[in-house]
Amino acid sequence: MRMGEFELLARIRERLPAGGPRTHLGSGDDAAVTIPGGATATSVDALVDGVHFRREIARPAQIGHKALATALSDLAAMGAEAGEAYVVLGLPPDFGEEESIELLDGMAALAEETGTDLAGGDLTRSSQLFLSITVVGHASSADAFVARRGAQAGDALVLSGEIGAAAAGLELLEQGRGDATLAKRQLEPTPRLSAGRALARAGATAMIDLSDGLGADAMHLATASGVKLEIEAEAVPLAPAAVALSRTMGRDPWRLLSGGEDYELLACLPADRVEEARAAVGSEGGTTLTKVGEVQAGSGVEIRLPDGRLLEPAGFDQLA
Amino acid sequence: MRMGEFELLARIRERLPAGGPRTHLGSGDDAAVTIPGGATATSVDALVDGVHFRREIARPAQIGHKALATALSDLAAMGAEAGEAYVVLGLPPDFGEEESIELLDGMAALAEETGTDLAGGDLTRSSQLFLSITVVGHASSADAFVARRGAQAGDALVLSGEIGAAAAGLELLEQGRGDATLAKRQLEPTPRLSAGRALARAGATAMIDLSDGLGADAMHLATASGVKLEIEAEAVPLAPAAVALSRTMGRDPWRLLSGGEDYELLACLPADRVEEARAAVGSEGGTTLTKVGEVQAGSGVEIRLPDGRLLEPAGFDQLA
Repeated sequence: MRMGEFELLARIRERLPAGGPRTHLGSGDDAAVTIPGGATATSVDALVDGVHFRREIARPAQIGHKALATALSDLAAMGAEAGEAYVVLGLPPDFGEEESIELLDGMAALAEETGTDLAGGDLTRSSQLFLSITVVGHASSADAFVARRGAQAGDALVLSGEIGAAAAGLELLEQGRGDATLAKRQLEPTPRLSAGRALARAGATAMIDLSDGLGADAMHLATASGVKLEIEAEAVPLAPAAVALSRTMGRDPWRLLSGGEDYELLACLPADRVEEARAAVGSEGGTTLTKVGEVQAGSGVEIRLPDGRLLEPAGFDQLA
Repeated sequence: MRMGEFELLARIRERLPAGGPRTHLGSGDDAAVTIPGGATATSVDALVDGVHFRREIARPAQIGHKALATALSDLAAMGAEAGEAYVVLGLPPDFGEEESIELLDGMAALAEETGTDLAGGDLTRSSQLFLSITVVGHASSADAFVARRGAQAGDALVLSGEIGAAAAGLELLEQGRGDATLAKRQLEPTPRLSAGRALARAGATAMIDLSDGLGADAMHLATASGVKLEIEAEAVPLAPAAVALSRTMGRDPWRLLSGGEDYELLACLPADRVEEARAAVGSEGGTTLTKVGEVQAGSGVEIRLPDGRLLEPAGFDQLA
């Protein structure tokens, strides 16, 4: 670190907003004090340079944004209201004061946008840049949260937004090419907090956010719920710019189904509530909601391509 | 990592206790769900190999124990009841499966002893072993917690247990010498949770745990409360084995006052409640409570040696 930890902490504190509605005592004491007033959902995510992001590709503000966004995405997948975030930064010698502040500014901007209070944290030296983000979300009761395990045979399977853009964006970035829209979807994902709450209110029975990819995350949900998920590939909204890029590169666009890091929400809900959920996600969540399949008795995930081929998540690698 | 993240996670989960009294949905979903029912105190601590601990000196179980202990010590300093812990592990290639499990076992043993629920976490590859621990403590209301900022002129200054042993233990360990008692105080500190709650109930006005050392932490408290702390060195209970070691090495035993990492509690409380607090800490906290000084109007920290010399925290380095 090019400056003392205390000095950097002081600079960080002065840039943080004054505290959230539940925060009684913020950063600077032995612990932050909050009054949750209901049930809480808590998630922890660690991000390491070279594993989860790359300093050659992402600017510090984008690293900060994405770290908080991916943590908040877990709260979105619970249908939670964003509450507090606690941030650990491991700072290597070649990551200076200005970069640290820029990283925190990127995080603070998303915190403000989502109503998240950056309530505490810790700084340390380390050989490699890393972040660990703990986020706490809120709901009136534990039952108001949506876990992965409640899907029922007969439920509809719905997806927020479009997928494929983040993976396409990463491919372009790795080649040093700059499609701004796709790159932004990779570097600055949007946690679907409002859509998640709308889905919870509309009666979602199970929900997960897409970090590993549609097939892999559908499998997590199917396993937790003890059901089979059938997905119609043609119904899945793929980002048009990503499809165009696949075609240009002579690749099967269905390969985009396996791309991760879109942080859209995959949810199950009673079939007769899809329209209500779609309207709520459109008006409050600012994005689309699409029925992409059905929940059936059984286990596993099947993705049906238009030509009748059935893909299992592990089978994505067979595509060109 | 020598094994897949999923496999290690599965092995970890099967070793964890079933969940705490407030935990509605534990590890394995997008987030852990709890029902706090009052106010919460949340603290985050990061520990990095070579900065906060050293793999050459500490066994994996001790690294796990100490990481959770230092985090819980922050809750002790709030007078909180231990609740949930969320654990991030960054695992380098040369830290194998058995070592990871041993580290978690050391942590789980302390969790069980203190009634802490290991409710969630994340694993990642990294170049350097690191841990990030988030702990959540509970109280009936926000006012029941003790911050650093409430000390009043006229309050007594009290200290739990003895100090100096952890620093002496580190010195021995670095020399490859093995006084078991002193080494244990360095490698396996005890968070003073019961003592902290007893002090809170006895009316503590401000409290902090000793991680940086008596002088430095007293200064944090004095600054937060806007008071001056006067400490009588002769009243401070120094660990006899540490004093003996200092004498053997020809050093001024008062130097032990600046040793950190004892994780004892330094608290202020009305002078007429010291006896009550001492009795409560003795019976519930399992340790001693000693009056070591007074709170006065002003600022800063003064430590008076028996020969009349006055030490300021920054002046510890002057001692042999």
